[in-house]
Amino acid sequence: MSCDPVIAVVGATGLVGNEVVVVLDQMRISRGEVRLFASEESAGEIYKVGQTEAVVEVLQENSFAGVDIALFATSAELSAKFVPLAVKAGAFAIDNSSYFRMREEVPLVVPEVNAQALSPNSKLIANPNCSTIQLVPVLDVIHQAAGLKRVVVSTYQSVSGAGKDALDELWSQTLAVFNQREIECQAFQHQIAFNCIPQIDLILEDGYSKEEYKIINESRKILSLPNLKITATAVRVPVLYSHAESVNVETERELAPEELAHLLAKKAGILPYCSVGEYPMPLHVAGTDQIHVGRIRRDHSVPYGLDMWIVADNVRKGAALNAVQIAKLLIERGWV
Amino acid sequence: MSCDPVIAVVGATGLVGNEVVVVLDQMRISRGEVRLFASEESAGEIYKVGQTEAVVEVLQENSFAGVDIALFATSAELSAKFVPLAVKAGAFAIDNSSYFRMREEVPLVVPEVNAQALSPNSKLIANPNCSTIQLVPVLDVIHQAAGLKRVVVSTYQSVSGAGKDALDELWSQTLAVFNQREIECQAFQHQIAFNCIPQIDLILEDGYSKEEYKIINESRKILSLPNLKITATAVRVPVLYSHAESVNVETERELAPEELAHLLAKKAGILPYCSVGEYPMPLHVAGTDQIHVGRIRRDHSVPYGLDMWIVADNVRKGAALNAVQIAKLLIERGWV
Repeated sequence: MSCDPVIAVVGATGLVGNEVVVVLDQMRISRGEVRLFASEESAGEIYKVGQTEAVVEVLQENSFAGVDIALFATSAELSAKFVPLAVKAGAFAIDNSSYFRMREEVPLVVPEVNAQALSPNSKLIANPNCSTIQLVPVLDVIHQAAGLKRVVVSTYQSVSGAGKDALDELWSQTLAVFNQREIECQAFQHQIAFNCIPQIDLILEDGYSKEEYKIINESRKILSLPNLKITATAVRVPVLYSHAESVNVETERELAPEELAHLLAKKAGILPYCSVGEYPMPLHVAGTDQIHVGRIRRDHSVPYGLDMWIVADNVRKGAALNAVQIAKLLIERGWV
Repeated sequence: MSCDPVIAVVGATGLVGNEVVVVLDQMRISRGEVRLFASEESAGEIYKVGQTEAVVEVLQENSFAGVDIALFATSAELSAKFVPLAVKAGAFAIDNSSYFRMREEVPLVVPEVNAQALSPNSKLIANPNCSTIQLVPVLDVIHQAAGLKRVVVSTYQSVSGAGKDALDELWSQTLAVFNQREIECQAFQHQIAFNCIPQIDLILEDGYSKEEYKIINESRKILSLPNLKITATAVRVPVLYSHAESVNVETERELAPEELAHLLAKKAGILPYCSVGEYPMPLHVAGTDQIHVGRIRRDHSVPYGLDMWIVADNVRKGAALNAVQIAKLLIERGWV
């Protein structure tokens, strides 16, 4: 009998699920059994899990017997059905979908910001949206230092945020442009190659996209600032990995750019760029664990304002890494 | 002897100069003689100008004798030298470079906004920066309707803003990625293929790029609002043509999104998108003359706020078309 927890990765063959398996090994918390679940299509495939291998099993209602932590990288529809089953079977479920995030009783956690929201009794834990995860640790530092007054975010989001098919689509569309072949759009409603699409997820009647509301509402919940004044515009750009965000912040009190960089540098998981002319870019941030913050400068249009440019790997910190960090906390606290 | 003005296009073989020649014909104001000037390299090349052809001449100090309007699509350095020579020779000079734009005595003109800044005695006229040109007509409508209080802009700028070499570079870098060849960077400091670069023009000591200051200072001058509260973040994206801008506006008074769309629709040169789920994108806006405005919606983080997404072809409305529109006004007013 092993004392190491049994971990299940649900949706293990997708972009995020795959990365969860990689990160579990890198963070050395996969010493116990790791079970991989996916749809029938992928059943039987063999994946490397650290030094060993695991066979992908078909996800079923009774899959969670004996599982301590189930990491879900599934669609909202699948999560809606299977996350409660995992919890019912006694596991902690960390769900990467949007389905449970805004429920009051569900902790929505970025470990650097609100690890205190976790409790041994809250077995269902939501992993925030990728564009939220990279934003809130920086906003938290600013709020602690100078009081957040208002936030305006414009995103530059990579196609990997929409999954494997979207990556393939940018790739194949780009080739089709070169070869003057017809452009096919399936993952996105419009051509993304050599284009920007100012829509991520559905657009609602009031003109906002669901992605924009995720940024707004999830930030408020994670920061425990239900009335935070924040607006967002979410845009897809023809980049493979990493999301970037142009963030304008108005604060209650003075906060010099150098002081903010200094505070960010002290925070685990955040990497500020301080030299003029140095800044993070999606291409180079891809594959890293940190939240990279550059172009920090004064906004003179308000008494206390700052502009900045925040970049993180949306598949790692924006999804897989954050989920595994939550799992690690559960283990460290002895709750599993 | 012809009554039609003699028009010179300086830098005629570049991306913008070339488009100036095309627009002159499309707007039917090239019925008189059109003379093309460029460096020695291009001298002797033959370009189609409407129904006729013109041979590219070497730009020289005495090139402007007999010229009525000289349209400059040259670098700041070349403009600094040759624009004054054109004016001295009696021509109106419309300069697309940044060199003269902020001089108090030089009109900086977007015809839809401040045609009144033109005068028969101001022979040197500056064409604004591409990212400014597409912004100010929209800001002007908002200001007239509800009073501008503050503006926050994040740009998504195409590589054509950096000229022909930059277009080639995005193309060749993209191919190099596919072929796993080494990436060469010359037009840009970093790889732009499948990347975003949060720097356009030089970055100054205070952390702002020159491009960002162009948006800020030129908008103030054109709108005659020297104290306009405005901040900007300028970002290069892997798109061939058209710049997009995510624009957040705070106004003094109520302005409903539907009302703004209604006002924009009445304005020549602006095309608002009113249906939820319809919006302009760089790929489809390329080659058009209008300023396209979509995703207009309320920003609830301030009493009176709006978010929107503005797209225009940076080579046409953002440069060549605007310059030719100015030339057309000079002719219509009988000043040449």
